[in-house]
Amino acid sequence: MPTVGLLTGGGDAPGLNAVIRAAVRRAENGGWNCLGIIDGWKGLLDGQTMPLGRANTNDIIAEGGTILGTSRTNPYKKPDDVKKLLATTKKLGLDAIIAIGGDDTLGVADQLFREHNLKVVGVPKTIDNDLSCTDYTFGFDTAVNAAMEAIDRLITTARSHRRCFVVETMGRHAGWIAAYAGIAGGADITLVPEKPVDMEQVIAVLKRNREEGRTYNIVVVSEGITFEPGAFVTVKEGELDEFGHVRLGGVGNRVAELIEKHTGYETRCVVLGHLQRGGPPSAFDRVLATRLGYAAAELVVTGQFGKMAALRGNKIVAADLREAVGATKTLDMELFKVAEAFFAVD
Amino acid sequence: MPTVGLLTGGGDAPGLNAVIRAAVRRAENGGWNCLGIIDGWKGLLDGQTMPLGRANTNDIIAEGGTILGTSRTNPYKKPDDVKKLLATTKKLGLDAIIAIGGDDTLGVADQLFREHNLKVVGVPKTIDNDLSCTDYTFGFDTAVNAAMEAIDRLITTARSHRRCFVVETMGRHAGWIAAYAGIAGGADITLVPEKPVDMEQVIAVLKRNREEGRTYNIVVVSEGITFEPGAFVTVKEGELDEFGHVRLGGVGNRVAELIEKHTGYETRCVVLGHLQRGGPPSAFDRVLATRLGYAAAELVVTGQFGKMAALRGNKIVAADLREAVGATKTLDMELFKVAEAFFAVD
Amino acid sequence: MPTVGLLTGGGDAPGLNAVIRAAVRRAENGGWNCLGIIDGWKGLLDGQTMPLGRANTNDIIAEGGTILGTSRTNPYKKPDDVKKLLATTKKLGLDAIIAIGGDDTLGVADQLFREHNLKVVGVPKTIDNDLSCTDYTFGFDTAVNAAMEAIDRLITTARSHRRCFVVETMGRHAGWIAAYAGIAGGADITLVPEKPVDMEQVIAVLKRNREEGRTYNIVVVSEGITFEPGAFVTVKEGELDEFGHVRLGGVGNRVAELIEKHTGYETRCVVLGHLQRGGPPSAFDRVLATRLGYAAAELVVTGQFGKMAALRGNKIVAADLREAVGATKTLDMELFKVAEAFFAVD
Amino acid sequence: MPTVGLLTGGGDAPGLNAVIRAAVRRAENGGWNCLGIIDGWKGLLDGQTMPLGRANTNDIIAEGGTILGTSRTNPYKKPDDVKKLLATTKKLGLDAIIAIGGDDTLGVADQLFREHNLKVVGVPKTIDNDLSCTDYTFGFDTAVNAAMEAIDRLITTARSHRRCFVVETMGRHAGWIAAYAGIAGGADITLVPEKPVDMEQVIAVLKRNREEGRTYNIVVVSEGITFEPGAFVTVKEGELDEFGHVRLGGVGNRVAELIEKHTGYETRCVVLGHLQRGGPPSAFDRVLATRLGYAAAELVVTGQFGKMAALRGNKIVAADLREAVGATKTLDMELFKVAEAFFAVD
Repeated sequence: MPTVGLLTGGGDAPGLNAVIRAAVRRAENGGWNCLGIIDGWKGLLDGQTMPLGRANTNDIIAEGGTILGTSRTNPYKKPDDVKKLLATTKKLGLDAIIAIGGDDTLGVADQLFREHNLKVVGVPKTIDNDLSCTDYTFGFDTAVNAAMEAIDRLITTARSHRRCFVVETMGRHAGWIAAYAGIAGGADITLVPEKPVDMEQVIAVLKRNREEGRTYNIVVVSEGITFEPGAFVTVKEGELDEFGHVRLGGVGNRVAELIEKHTGYETRCVVLGHLQRGGPPSAFDRVLATRLGYAAAELVVTGQFGKMAALRGNKIVAADLREAVGATKTLDMELFKVAEAFFAVD
Repeated sequence: MPTVGLLTGGGDAPGLNAVIRAAVRRAENGGWNCLGIIDGWKGLLDGQTMPLGRANTNDIIAEGGTILGTSRTNPYKKPDDVKKLLATTKKLGLDAIIAIGGDDTLGVADQLFREHNLKVVGVPKTIDNDLSCTDYTFGFDTAVNAAMEAIDRLITTARSHRRCFVVETMGRHAGWIAAYAGIAGGADITLVPEKPVDMEQVIAVLKRNREEGRTYNIVVVSEGITFEPGAFVTVKEGELDEFGHVRLGGVGNRVAELIEKHTGYETRCVVLGHLQRGGPPSAFDRVLATRLGYAAAELVVTGQFGKMAALRGNKIVAADLREAVGATKTLDMELFKVAEAFFAVD
Repeated sequence: MPTVGLLTGGGDAPGLNAVIRAAVRRAENGGWNCLGIIDGWKGLLDGQTMPLGRANTNDIIAEGGTILGTSRTNPYKKPDDVKKLLATTKKLGLDAIIAIGGDDTLGVADQLFREHNLKVVGVPKTIDNDLSCTDYTFGFDTAVNAAMEAIDRLITTARSHRRCFVVETMGRHAGWIAAYAGIAGGADITLVPEKPVDMEQVIAVLKRNREEGRTYNIVVVSEGITFEPGAFVTVKEGELDEFGHVRLGGVGNRVAELIEKHTGYETRCVVLGHLQRGGPPSAFDRVLATRLGYAAAELVVTGQFGKMAALRGNKIVAADLREAVGATKTLDMELFKVAEAFFAVD
Repeated sequence: MPTVGLLTGGGDAPGLNAVIRAAVRRAENGGWNCLGIIDGWKGLLDGQTMPLGRANTNDIIAEGGTILGTSRTNPYKKPDDVKKLLATTKKLGLDAIIAIGGDDTLGVADQLFREHNLKVVGVPKTIDNDLSCTDYTFGFDTAVNAAMEAIDRLITTARSHRRCFVVETMGRHAGWIAAYAGIAGGADITLVPEKPVDMEQVIAVLKRNREEGRTYNIVVVSEGITFEPGAFVTVKEGELDEFGHVRLGGVGNRVAELIEKHTGYETRCVVLGHLQRGGPPSAFDRVLATRLGYAAAELVVTGQFGKMAALRGNKIVAADLREAVGATKTLDMELFKVAEAFFAVD
């Protein structure tokens, strides 16, 4: 019986275990054995593995994280690692590999496929939803729900104290989480990396909303935002990026300080961080991850490699790994227009 | 300034308030007044309304249900009601109507548009996700999460007592909720209206899973299932439907009884019922509902009537109301194949 | 090193695993080995055990149910079982036993202690909170939160449709869950086994609340209620209990029917059943269960048997097993007076 | 009819609305009118009020925060404010006042009662659970559940990446939240203000647990901890407090840095902050708050002033306001001994 190795790389995301569970089921149904590789590419270097079968994957769908462990090890970073990895792959008797991960993990997979003909199938994973060639990635929906529930909670305090809360979400390169959480949380305004922030607009929106009767404010901020230089944000040395925008650390707290200073409203910042990452996956993420894991194993069973299982509309399709890596999928600005309807100022 | 009336009809669904909030915002941004019509078409018969504006819709996105109230009143059921409704519409000074509802509510909207040129725009709503012309309806994701969380809870008891639990979900005509909840909950087997149930297969799957080491079972059952007549389900008078399948009441409990009888496993049934319907909408539903409400108001503002805002892939589009009503969108059997991978028996 | 056996009996409750985890830790700290007995007293008859130590109990506190499994086996039901049980206890080398369970399980423990000098310590467990000698039992708080969250969800539908919802909770002999859930859920009226139900009062309260402006109703019903015979509840043969009250099956649905009939409000019933039992324990239950498990092991380590760890005020104390079993702790009527303040009718 | 004014002061806490709702109900049942005072003592200075009755308090029990708004205004801070406050009280026709708040709010209430014979009844409120004369305060249970759920979420990421997570909870003067969350979350070790932290012990516990097979760690840290000076924590000028302990800012991040440095485990810190404060109250808090609100109004109706409704064991009692204020109720060290059983090192 042929054997497929499964590995998970990069930051953990809710749904990884659902991918593993479905891939194992589909592979076994198709006559393949499965082998779990510990801690991503690192395990394929060191030969660290665990058995994978129905018995130990049946009950894992509700668990966040990954039973395989994960790491950020990239074999292309050290000269001899690729050779070592290929040797271990052979030694372990692996006929194919399903690599579940983000841009980095899939980039390695793609390169191993192209350069060494390693029989690889990818499954896209990022909480940030910014991977190309797939409409949504699992983990994103869980992260958005976590952020939204945090906002729901903060609103009661905001209202009682007539405060402004700034909520900093994940999203270094793309504003997906912020935009979804901002819409779902009914934020006064949402700030995303795709649009350098105009703090004067932010202040104007908050003031207008208070004048219209709102007694509190919620501002959602993606961790990766930059600022338009201006009256409220002056440029200091080394803070200007290549596009002429101001790049600061700890943006949530910065935005909160500016708001309090220029509106007089008591303002607090909450950085959600890892709270967006953990916990049981949402139904959407469990179903999407199950479909992707199933499809990835089907690609293995039917001998289609160098591919990635992806979501397009309602359908799971096979995308080329090569096309999928390297390009960030930034926020759909048509969607963001809907968010902007709530913070337009004339 | 022109005025648009908003109404919600049929069973409530999480996300209705998000539609209302977004439609009000977009309509006001476009220079329209909004008027809330109480209890669906009933309010348009009686002239019962409430003011709608930013102030009283800003904070409603996290609330399930509808601030407008709802009813199942259909003006085409009584001879003079349509006339009365048109007169009230005129008297209230309504230039357009946004009707948010299911097949029945939208059917009325379509008929009023075609027969009386009432300027109507529709927004599709059903927890069951079985409306045509839209990929997903809001409320569905919240319902699936509620069902999945119920299953997650029941598993701890199932495991401690080595029991089988049968979970009956909504879904009279389509198995969307059951299929999604069954996949997400890691059910042993999922039964949907689209496939008459073969109880012998059900029993075989449960027995095989126990033999493979699983110590408990979860069976998800859509309320609308029928049964293949056979050894375990004998036909009594009046129970056979037009397709030759056995149609029974209280299917969850029936399935539980049959399982306990033919496997000997202690079996319990939980009917989720209204618990799938209420509570704060999920992030997915809040975003989808906001996008639909925004798009519906945009159709009004731009003078496109007889349309329905709908989701296709990632985009919101304008579908013809007429096409949308009357046809049930049954479960995607390609998706169900993924669920079936977990309960295939050779 | 001496060895203590741990077993869990009766219906599962959130917190059982926390008891096991804490008892193992305290016992090991005190120089004792631990042995897990599978499926309650049944495992002590059959000699079915599993090893218990820090390694396999460290991570179980968040899991509902019991890793030991449970059953309702009572060795006093069959003539030779007690002898067999004592022999197995000896054969397994058990120097003491921690029995975690309800009235039945603890009754066996007490009898074995008194009649056969088996070194037993008890930990009280019931979701219903109706065990004597302890202020609260773990599992109760989780059950109440589950019931309350269900009510919170149902209210959105109740309000949208102007309906009455009847919510049937657990509580066969005592109204603790119903009373707490009724207060916490803001019910119009709460019905408990301690007070035979006066349906005329129920109807009067609902009508008054509607007259005062409430547009929906919530009625919480304990599964163990009886009815005062009267205008709305007539007595049929065999339904009258020893106290002259009417005892009916499916009380939630009965109450719903009577309400709909006599008020005209659309009324639905939801039976919560097992949804109150499963899932991760609440913080209160995890802390209480941890304290009880710790205290039980301390009783073992210090050689105090025939005792039960119990909560009194804020303190964990050692109660006599004998006093604890056999008497139902009914609802504190001073607490219920607070609930009644909301449904008093003059 | 006499009138009682209700006010809420200090930081918001889940359960405030339940107190208001129950007090209004009990007061009205006793023949009193109720008046809501906006933003704590500030509203009694400015005469800002809102009507309070059954109609607008019926539905607020599930909402966090306070519908009355809150502030930290203390009339004893400005020379003429007390006079002004007494005048406004008279002008508003208030015959009594129910003050719901923490040490500061209740201190003002007590002083007004003693110095000016203002007819005041207090209700204790603090999320931190550190108020004297009451076993528990409402808001605490909700905060602990929020912290525990955050830990539950973080564990999945901790496990996948073999990380250590430091979770900083509220608790400036007392370790109640940290101790409860630490026990409930199954933390490796919990650090509280009552015990200056020995970082060498912390490191030793984490290392031992890894050696015993645990692959990740959770450390719960109360925001108010201090450190024992020692090998890992050296003393810098101005950091030593009056007891010879090191007092640092941002303790969660400090602890995380020290752990990563001295164990080599990848370590992250999450500061929970306001996420512990908001959202719907837990069942425990709703019931406790309802009982306290009811009892406070009963004290008013029966003419017992200068008192505070308090929880002792299972009973609600009337404590003297004077005794209640000024003394911090620190963590029960008998309870903490249970937590310590899990991180004892020999």
